[in-house]
Amino acid sequence: MTSYPRELLAIATFLKKLPGVGTKTAERFAFHLLSWQQDDLSKFSSLLEELKEKIIFCSECHSLTHESPCLLCKDENRNRTQLCITSSAKEVFSIEGTRSYRGLYHVLGGLLSPLEGKMPEHLNLDTLKTRVDRLGIREIIIALDSTLEGDTTALFLKDKLQSWGLQVSRLAFGVPMGSSLEFVDGSTLARALTSRQLF
Amino acid sequence: MTSYPRELLAIATFLKKLPGVGTKTAERFAFHLLSWQQDDLSKFSSLLEELKEKIIFCSECHSLTHESPCLLCKDENRNRTQLCITSSAKEVFSIEGTRSYRGLYHVLGGLLSPLEGKMPEHLNLDTLKTRVDRLGIREIIIALDSTLEGDTTALFLKDKLQSWGLQVSRLAFGVPMGSSLEFVDGSTLARALTSRQLF
Repeated sequence: MTSYPRELLAIATFLKKLPGVGTKTAERFAFHLLSWQQDDLSKFSSLLEELKEKIIFCSECHSLTHESPCLLCKDENRNRTQLCITSSAKEVFSIEGTRSYRGLYHVLGGLLSPLEGKMPEHLNLDTLKTRVDRLGIREIIIALDSTLEGDTTALFLKDKLQSWGLQVSRLAFGVPMGSSLEFVDGSTLARALTSRQLF
Repeated sequence: MTSYPRELLAIATFLKKLPGVGTKTAERFAFHLLSWQQDDLSKFSSLLEELKEKIIFCSECHSLTHESPCLLCKDENRNRTQLCITSSAKEVFSIEGTRSYRGLYHVLGGLLSPLEGKMPEHLNLDTLKTRVDRLGIREIIIALDSTLEGDTTALFLKDKLQSWGLQVSRLAFGVPMGSSLEFVDGSTLARALTSRQLF
């Protein structure tokens, strides 16, 4: 029996590391890469090689940037008394994309998960305290997932931040925009009911 | 508004070329790549760079190989009077994986699709005739998709190959192994009925 050429298998093995990619999809991707122009493959290849050299973590907010501190941290036109806490840099860019927030950010670099050994000391909390004091932050917005880990981390942060005398809020939970109530799950609907607002 | 660092966007743009990968998935993959070890990124990067140099098409059967002619074409223990026609090299490896076939292969390099401008001259048909004559092929097995393009190509090949005096067969259609009749679509069921076999 002849199997795939070993280079294809090696590429598929790397592609399988990507989230949600299984063996079949990885093989499909690897075959697709064979149909790319050499020029594209070379460009893609050098982008990957240099990725971690070009993109670094901001020493202030721990988001991704080309130079540290990042443009967001240096921007004097932003509201420097508001701080939005996210688990990863991806959410910083998502929130920026909404154009609804003009404060600063702080990326935790993960969520608490005792089962996976993710404890408070693994999150960017030392710099959080330093920044809160130095910048004179007054309001903190917790923008974490609505999952077990997200809720645990949010509760942990709430206790800590309130003991520092800060106003702490969390993103609203409820019915997603544009969705039909028929397809909204029970717990979301229950949360939307208890958090109902005057109309 | 600050958007993703441009290197991440560039990587996401390349990942979007992969089949079934949209903007959101590509961004997710790009962020995931940031979490890889530099060593893995470098290895993956050089595999991509050298992919098309290391893996070539066999001059005989047009499948993928490190050296031409490929191991399958050179293997004197195979049945050299049987030829299995597939649309791409991927299927050659799938069929080899079944260990149910010991003949030779011929990869068309696509399927007929007049709407997409894919005509007979774009398929590896010249070498098919040469090989059939030189090898003294007696039986041809058409292993093409059960789609509009697959059926069109199979019919086109059947006429051509029968005029060369060859015995032509096509993969059997019917109920997939291990599936419940409840979930089998109507046209497959109809085909399984007309192609029913003595038990």
